[in-house]
Amino acid sequence: MVPGLKIDEDSDVPVYRQIVDGVRAALAEGRLLPGGKLPPTRELARQLGVNRNTVVAAYEALAAEGLVTSHTGRGTFATEPAEPSSEAGSAAFLAGGEWLTSFSRAVEGPGVAGLLSVYRAAMSSDGISFAGSYPAAELMPVERFRSALDAVLRRRGAEVLSYGPTSGYPALREAIAADMRSKGSSAAAEGILVTNGSQQAVELVFRTMLDRGDPVVIEEPTYTGALSVLSSLGARIVGVPVDEEGIRPDLLALALERHRPRVVYVQPTFHNPTTHVMGEVRRLEVLSLASRFGCAVVEDDWASDLRFEGADLPTLHAMDGGRRVVYISTFSKKLLPGLRVGWVAAPPAVLERLVALKQIEDHGSSPLLQAALHEFLADGGLAEHLDRVRPAYRERRDIMLNALKRRLPDGVVWARPEGGLFLWVTLPVGIDSTDLFVAARERQVLISRGELFHADGSGRETFRLTYASVRPAQIETGIAVLGELIHERWGGRSENAARRVDEAVPIL
Amino acid sequence: MVPGLKIDEDSDVPVYRQIVDGVRAALAEGRLLPGGKLPPTRELARQLGVNRNTVVAAYEALAAEGLVTSHTGRGTFATEPAEPSSEAGSAAFLAGGEWLTSFSRAVEGPGVAGLLSVYRAAMSSDGISFAGSYPAAELMPVERFRSALDAVLRRRGAEVLSYGPTSGYPALREAIAADMRSKGSSAAAEGILVTNGSQQAVELVFRTMLDRGDPVVIEEPTYTGALSVLSSLGARIVGVPVDEEGIRPDLLALALERHRPRVVYVQPTFHNPTTHVMGEVRRLEVLSLASRFGCAVVEDDWASDLRFEGADLPTLHAMDGGRRVVYISTFSKKLLPGLRVGWVAAPPAVLERLVALKQIEDHGSSPLLQAALHEFLADGGLAEHLDRVRPAYRERRDIMLNALKRRLPDGVVWARPEGGLFLWVTLPVGIDSTDLFVAARERQVLISRGELFHADGSGRETFRLTYASVRPAQIETGIAVLGELIHERWGGRSENAARRVDEAVPIL
Repeated sequence: MVPGLKIDEDSDVPVYRQIVDGVRAALAEGRLLPGGKLPPTRELARQLGVNRNTVVAAYEALAAEGLVTSHTGRGTFATEPAEPSSEAGSAAFLAGGEWLTSFSRAVEGPGVAGLLSVYRAAMSSDGISFAGSYPAAELMPVERFRSALDAVLRRRGAEVLSYGPTSGYPALREAIAADMRSKGSSAAAEGILVTNGSQQAVELVFRTMLDRGDPVVIEEPTYTGALSVLSSLGARIVGVPVDEEGIRPDLLALALERHRPRVVYVQPTFHNPTTHVMGEVRRLEVLSLASRFGCAVVEDDWASDLRFEGADLPTLHAMDGGRRVVYISTFSKKLLPGLRVGWVAAPPAVLERLVALKQIEDHGSSPLLQAALHEFLADGGLAEHLDRVRPAYRERRDIMLNALKRRLPDGVVWARPEGGLFLWVTLPVGIDSTDLFVAARERQVLISRGELFHADGSGRETFRLTYASVRPAQIETGIAVLGELIHERWGGRSENAARRVDEAVPIL
Repeated sequence: MVPGLKIDEDSDVPVYRQIVDGVRAALAEGRLLPGGKLPPTRELARQLGVNRNTVVAAYEALAAEGLVTSHTGRGTFATEPAEPSSEAGSAAFLAGGEWLTSFSRAVEGPGVAGLLSVYRAAMSSDGISFAGSYPAAELMPVERFRSALDAVLRRRGAEVLSYGPTSGYPALREAIAADMRSKGSSAAAEGILVTNGSQQAVELVFRTMLDRGDPVVIEEPTYTGALSVLSSLGARIVGVPVDEEGIRPDLLALALERHRPRVVYVQPTFHNPTTHVMGEVRRLEVLSLASRFGCAVVEDDWASDLRFEGADLPTLHAMDGGRRVVYISTFSKKLLPGLRVGWVAAPPAVLERLVALKQIEDHGSSPLLQAALHEFLADGGLAEHLDRVRPAYRERRDIMLNALKRRLPDGVVWARPEGGLFLWVTLPVGIDSTDLFVAARERQVLISRGELFHADGSGRETFRLTYASVRPAQIETGIAVLGELIHERWGGRSENAARRVDEAVPIL
């Protein structure tokens, strides 16, 4: 159906990439015309003898590139040129680049395509999105942040519009360190590096510590963005299952003994995606194991300020005195993602190298946004904002829990998080969350499918639902759609629910 | 003089890093006390039997870490704890991290320390800085940019404070493509990726195309930030000398034939650091060679909008139709560094991978700053700003040329740039620009020493002087200091000037 498209099974080029290249070539050579319809993913998968998800990934990459457009219910079409003014550009855009056929291993790992597809799914503004772990846009302190920016520009405009120190705006580093100290950490401003969101912090930390082929221990499942970084670095991923208290210490000990990694990456509080919180005893066990095996613990603490119930627990960084723990956090989830401000606190030998790599990657983050954020924090803006969003998120969580209970069959289970932005759902046997994702997307409801949080493509019995950024009425509507779709697929086969318990994966 | 400090010549740890680690250990173990004076660099170098520059690099790394402080004329001292409030933090900061002794190859390359040291030298606000290629802070359009930010926040605050598309804010991508089209490029918005300054663009492009050990052809000398990226990636750097028309095509052909690189990196207009402009014939030769040997040309066009004399030349990207050229530029030099906005235009197969890697590195740049920049551009702010800075930079260039002519001996030579931010100076035989750098810094005048622009540490007969960000009176004073120092070192040995011509390195 795409003339000339063939898959070479012996090629080193990933299959989805062969499909992308084949469609691009068909377009460039006029075998596929603008406006022409591409075969449905299921059909092309059958024709080529490949997994349907491979075709889905290829179509998503083509859509990202602007070469195809998907219309819900109608199918996927080769994009028509948009405007006459950019026609010449589009032609060159389509025709160019075929000469360059090989790239670095950093961009050819399997996790690279996965990240883009989950991101695009989450960004879609049509319909109801439970994908993406975003804070509520309508609760953002826009006015107050505008004032902070304005004040900073009036007071020290040229300074903050110039280059700043690579490690970060000094007053912001001090404010971050002071906040960490108020939570029991022994943090000093000189031990903080400001990054472009916690994604860059995760990337810099792993890149500073891992060479291609080096082992790294992660929780299974874990944050998609961490998996993508590890894929780009060619790290050898050793997944250790989590239970309701976080990473399992018995299996962690085995993994450390066997693989001797330099780094263990954990999210002790409101773990993404399971929402589990590591208990204090478990935290001590993890630190003790890390000490015994001489490895660093990377603590990704993106959500602990978003607790709306229950008691705070000390961070690993606070418990350890910052000796063995590299601590990562961000203002994206608790405040404003568009600032792109996160940070890492690390011991000096690590920090020195992180700053060097930050300098190499982008010469430092914008002093303007850092200065405005400092102004906002100094003025008490964050505390006020948290007072506003925490009850709102609790309310949305309750609305979602209530809707799930009413709309979903008994075999479906989920946890009740005490903070953060989302829920984690486990399906009964026989329902595949990737199928559910595709079906729900047709109904304009987006979820985060479980396999995105696993390095090995497992986790298809799970998915993640964000409540924080969805308005209450939409939560109700969206969960109703999911309920219908699950009922359609599963009917009342309640015996399966029991079977799931026997086959329980460690995350349950 | 630093108790217990020893160098292990058989160690894999670079010598400067051994010094850093030794001083840190001395501090942690109380062998060196806060406030204690470190030996002068020359003396410690002699004691340890190492090159003095190695000690300079070590002291700069220690200063970056906050462990030592340099006081002009007095020497270098172990830092005293700053405030009681952060004492606990500082103690942990000093004591921690010794357990972690090995890092990835990405952060252990020789170029990593070099980048930090040049950067710190340039950032120093004491005295007169001819280092760093910065635009003039006092000419920045602060008020107008403040209005643009304000307007965007009032109109679409929550949108631009949320996550945005990884590839960039759509209206900004379109504005960038339109500007490139107005200069003859066939660029379309979908072929643009917005980055955190051109440094991130350079980093993403090289990281997408190069694996460890892969050859890459660069101009010799070249941009320090590109060298650092290549060092972090472990690329095999093949330098090709430049003459007054840019990279030498005879030697480029030899390098391409012999090393078969995937990438050639050039700055055709106002080459950093030499300020040379590649003529149109030379541009065609470079494109033709790239085509013959099947490699990509990375065109770093950071300065062509800063031309204040002479006629514009077409970019390689425009000449080639964007097929083989990956084009990089930035708003940092022509507008506001603190925005951290640059971009890359690339053929689709390349762009797709750049976007994926950008997503992995930091999830995309701030939509707020991109939207405000778009607003500023749409309002004509850039054109007006360029009308203001171009004559100012020409005036500062003339003041510097005049001062050089009056203050420096005959054997010193320099080019007369028609745009950009700096001048490139070549010294007569017998004067070392690294020595001059150290001596000038003692007099509170900063220059960029030539070896920073060379992968192999050569170039010590050259240095770079930025005029754009220095006020006219300071240009006069600073050049007078350099004149005195060069006279002191060189006296009137004019026979050396002739000798230099015989030994001329290709950059002359």
